[in-house]
Amino acid sequence: MVTCLHGLLSRVAALQELLCRDGMDGALILQSADLVYFCGTYQDARLYVPARGRAVLTVRRSMGRIDPSRVPADVVPLSKPAGIPDVLAARGLKMPAVLGMELDVLPVALFRRYEKIFTSRIVDCSPQIRTLRMVKSTAEINLMKESAAMMDGVYARIPDLLQEGMSEYELAAAVEAAARRAGHTGLIRVRGFNQEFFYGCLLAGPSGGVSSYFDSPLGGPGLTPAFPFGVGRHVIAAGDPVMVDYVGVVNGYQVDMTRVFAIGSLSGDLLAAHRTAVAIQDAIAAAARPGVTGDELYGLALDMAVKAGLGGHFMGYGDQVKFVGHGIGLELNEWPVLGRGMKEPLQAGMTLAVEPKFIFPGRGAVGVENTFAVTPDGLERLTSYPDDVVIVGG
Amino acid sequence: MVTCLHGLLSRVAALQELLCRDGMDGALILQSADLVYFCGTYQDARLYVPARGRAVLTVRRSMGRIDPSRVPADVVPLSKPAGIPDVLAARGLKMPAVLGMELDVLPVALFRRYEKIFTSRIVDCSPQIRTLRMVKSTAEINLMKESAAMMDGVYARIPDLLQEGMSEYELAAAVEAAARRAGHTGLIRVRGFNQEFFYGCLLAGPSGGVSSYFDSPLGGPGLTPAFPFGVGRHVIAAGDPVMVDYVGVVNGYQVDMTRVFAIGSLSGDLLAAHRTAVAIQDAIAAAARPGVTGDELYGLALDMAVKAGLGGHFMGYGDQVKFVGHGIGLELNEWPVLGRGMKEPLQAGMTLAVEPKFIFPGRGAVGVENTFAVTPDGLERLTSYPDDVVIVGG
Repeated sequence: MVTCLHGLLSRVAALQELLCRDGMDGALILQSADLVYFCGTYQDARLYVPARGRAVLTVRRSMGRIDPSRVPADVVPLSKPAGIPDVLAARGLKMPAVLGMELDVLPVALFRRYEKIFTSRIVDCSPQIRTLRMVKSTAEINLMKESAAMMDGVYARIPDLLQEGMSEYELAAAVEAAARRAGHTGLIRVRGFNQEFFYGCLLAGPSGGVSSYFDSPLGGPGLTPAFPFGVGRHVIAAGDPVMVDYVGVVNGYQVDMTRVFAIGSLSGDLLAAHRTAVAIQDAIAAAARPGVTGDELYGLALDMAVKAGLGGHFMGYGDQVKFVGHGIGLELNEWPVLGRGMKEPLQAGMTLAVEPKFIFPGRGAVGVENTFAVTPDGLERLTSYPDDVVIVGG
Repeated sequence: MVTCLHGLLSRVAALQELLCRDGMDGALILQSADLVYFCGTYQDARLYVPARGRAVLTVRRSMGRIDPSRVPADVVPLSKPAGIPDVLAARGLKMPAVLGMELDVLPVALFRRYEKIFTSRIVDCSPQIRTLRMVKSTAEINLMKESAAMMDGVYARIPDLLQEGMSEYELAAAVEAAARRAGHTGLIRVRGFNQEFFYGCLLAGPSGGVSSYFDSPLGGPGLTPAFPFGVGRHVIAAGDPVMVDYVGVVNGYQVDMTRVFAIGSLSGDLLAAHRTAVAIQDAIAAAARPGVTGDELYGLALDMAVKAGLGGHFMGYGDQVKFVGHGIGLELNEWPVLGRGMKEPLQAGMTLAVEPKFIFPGRGAVGVENTFAVTPDGLERLTSYPDDVVIVGG
């Protein structure tokens, strides 16, 4: 991923507009995904964006990894943040009276160090940043298409990798290796505290019915109580629904995708539930367009689930979540959320993971997930592997 | 990993002793690794430890994943933290005047929500928790031995996996798959803001000379500027040093390990530098015992590097780090640090990753890393695969 300087400068300018609108004199940006968004790379660095004027990037390490001609800011090597006020003063930038920082992710102890450096009143600028990042440029959507193509290729390999008698974690090893060989960069970014995540959930049979700490229809037993999430040790048998819900990324921009595989056959009621999930996805894809809200799309999905007699299994069983999709991009949990009470109207350029799923405790999970971009006319689908349950050999 | 209730109760009691000593009336623990330490599992939950009396765990999700008979606290389902004061009052626990929270990791926005719920003065209790976690029990060290055995097995496979003409990331795919099949649980926990990490660094030839945002002798180009860390695209040639610095974990407890492989041969000066690294490790292992400081061990290591004429290559080139080892356990960056100025004396039960390395820009990295436990008599080595450069086929 190399984002052109012009694109990065536009992002900084868009942030400056929001800072002016919302009464901030500047923003100091420290978080990895946000730095990637504004600077095109992540280094141990702090980006100061004044409400007006040129931004400054102070870099602790590694200076050698930053090409100043590609960064929408003056680049200054600086080991300690205490030196930032002098760097600003040398550029004629006044100390901000009101400074925005990413208070949704910045730890208190680090914040307190910055409070001593800046005499400013410090407020949260993460809503402004998340609002900007929510609407993608064509270039960003093209990057997501690259990640989607990689993942389509990986899912196409799964029928060959899946074998009766292998454990979930053995299949995960094979799928992850296929993804890595196809350029998967590994790390999945999820914004916020304790948002621990590794590839996603590959869950066979009863594992698909296990919920976890993570706010998701799926959880999974995990391999240890110390990280009780995702793939477990279930030995895959014929007839188990094998749900593969993995996040793919080759260039910083993630896509989220779910398919169900089964060896030999899958029982009729699970197949029917899967078809309902696909129908819900397709109904959302038909209804979604600029102006429609996440609340409306969630309502539409829930209605269909209830009418199919599957309301109690929709998006969890017991630990149900109240959404059917989420924004995605540099992070897995971007805005908007297609969920109850979400009144933010869709805009062209938003990207959505739509994931209707049904959970059957003791038996497993079925459903589908694809990543879409909102266009002026409706949704454009980015992940393209077929949605039906894939029945393998057996 | 199942930690016995008795062990967990001892940990809570040890924290209570520190809370009393340091003037806190209670601690509210939210972070994943800390919850694993005190409760044996991680769920979306908050552990309130009063300075005196029985602890209370309020659980948002998933209640079904917690066995109350194994948790050293009363377990109460509670969706919103605003209900915590009532839960405490119902148990006769007074609102703490001074409350400890993990301010080194807790985001400001979340902290402010808790500030409204607790009328307490909130102070940082992470030093107390990190101090406790720094000294492991025999049971914890045994868990680290399990992770070490898994990793020894994975490293033993690398000579068969490494082939001339494969890319770094293809080798990484194969090594990671071997680790996953052997039970590697994937997620590596690194404490703190922006500590993004995926398995570690597998770096061949020039990639070994590329530093990154991460405070480590190694960095690596990564596969994208959006995550510029670790494995890159270098095609492995005969004579390249192939450094595999991966973290292993099967039960929450991590070990850190580095070895160098090469196809055919490795040039004499790199072999000599590697031997110096092994000699430094062995000198540290011989000198380390309770009472010795991290500063002394770093000084010993740096002296040996300088005497070998390799001071400028030691633990980085340009972006040098000022340490030669670090504590490890549930997180990769535990206490103590074997580094400049670190006056904390070693204690029996500490666990250390000792990692003397030399970086040669454009050519690669050599060196070794093993994980050790401090015993009353010195260091016990947990990872055991041989330290020498492994020359493969060619």
